[in-house]
Amino acid sequence: MTTRTTGSTTRTAPRGGYRRLSVAERRGQLLEAALSLFAHRAPEDVSLDDVAEAAGVSRPLVYRYFPGGKQQLYEAALRTAADELEQCFAQPQTGPLTLRLSRALDHYLAFVAGHATGFSALLQGGSVADTSRTTATVDEVRRAAAEQILLHLAVPEPGPRLRMMVRTWITAVEAASLIWLDEGRQPAVAELRDWLVDHFVALLTATAATDPQTAAAARAALALESAEGAAGRLARRVLPVVAEAAHLL
Amino acid sequence: MTTRTTGSTTRTAPRGGYRRLSVAERRGQLLEAALSLFAHRAPEDVSLDDVAEAAGVSRPLVYRYFPGGKQQLYEAALRTAADELEQCFAQPQTGPLTLRLSRALDHYLAFVAGHATGFSALLQGGSVADTSRTTATVDEVRRAAAEQILLHLAVPEPGPRLRMMVRTWITAVEAASLIWLDEGRQPAVAELRDWLVDHFVALLTATAATDPQTAAAARAALALESAEGAAGRLARRVLPVVAEAAHLL
Repeated sequence: MTTRTTGSTTRTAPRGGYRRLSVAERRGQLLEAALSLFAHRAPEDVSLDDVAEAAGVSRPLVYRYFPGGKQQLYEAALRTAADELEQCFAQPQTGPLTLRLSRALDHYLAFVAGHATGFSALLQGGSVADTSRTTATVDEVRRAAAEQILLHLAVPEPGPRLRMMVRTWITAVEAASLIWLDEGRQPAVAELRDWLVDHFVALLTATAATDPQTAAAARAALALESAEGAAGRLARRVLPVVAEAAHLL
Repeated sequence: MTTRTTGSTTRTAPRGGYRRLSVAERRGQLLEAALSLFAHRAPEDVSLDDVAEAAGVSRPLVYRYFPGGKQQLYEAALRTAADELEQCFAQPQTGPLTLRLSRALDHYLAFVAGHATGFSALLQGGSVADTSRTTATVDEVRRAAAEQILLHLAVPEPGPRLRMMVRTWITAVEAASLIWLDEGRQPAVAELRDWLVDHFVALLTATAATDPQTAAAARAALALESAEGAAGRLARRVLPVVAEAAHLL
């Protein structure tokens, strides 16, 4: 089936059952269809026919919007996913840090769960669809997430150690997400989230030991935490383990 | 210049200045030359002529050993690098855990420093030389390193949480190494190493809070640490930070 009603370039009435969409709407529709396919299949296993079918449009229409074919569509879909992932860590700057991190991780892990195959394929590499452009997009998401976390820490000019700490934690979140998918989504997502928050608090505290700026950020963050929150729970549970290590002091 | 003295396939005397090497020696020599080139240049920027020149042999000789050309040579060089990296974490199973980790990281970071460009190119992805085979090799190094760390923790049958903890730490070591190279090798390598050891201790302790097996491993590991060692230093430095968080208990 062919069409002449491709978005705003035509002024005739819709034919062949296509809904009349603006260029931006049609592009968005195609990207959404592509993203949902890439979410559950490796890039190699998605064809432009699949995308056309999922969007309920013809193959030539897909080509008109993405003349670069599948690679262009893949990169554009990745761009859409990147925008969504970057938003995960942009939480309101109020309340205890662990609560903000928990909310951010809830969003992040929901995205991971909803785009499992694509997420794994992209981050595990080795796909023919991966290029220096897709790598740059992934790296941009990591950097944007790190910047958001630094905003949550309310440090005006974060130094290299604090930056390194945050970036390694982001990598750990990614790695843990991949392992989680790989292991049949065990443990429960809330448990994984809480562990990643504990991981952050532990890393912040350990880095505070040798970096004055991180120490100031850690003190400020811990002051806002409550005994009922994640930091309080962690502190009470860690106490019996470290209590046995009094010989270190 | 051509040669007929390619390793054990010939019995004539060396000509053209070639030293007579066995097949295995010659292969090793070529791999060593390749590895040292890939160490300082991206795979795209190394030609077979470069490898031949660095090894002091002819291009046809390189092809005879690696008929698959540069890609085969690259993958074989990566294999050699992987073997070396896997050995880093195989330290003697005695003494405090932090001391073993420090030694392992000294080896690992020395390798990173000595193969900076190749290490970055490989792990940052997007190179045409990266295939599902190179990805599998990198993943194998990660898994082997994790297995070694688990041996150091002396847990007979490590459960999923402990495994996830160790694997995320390995990823953090990798990420920190890349950042370190990217930032002109700042901080000093000993400082980076100590921070990564602190990172491990913090992560082990935080994971102990919710996983009984990790708690047992953490208790056993901390019992072997001394006040003068890395864990003692970390404990004394963290104390003032957490002392202010008494409201959490």
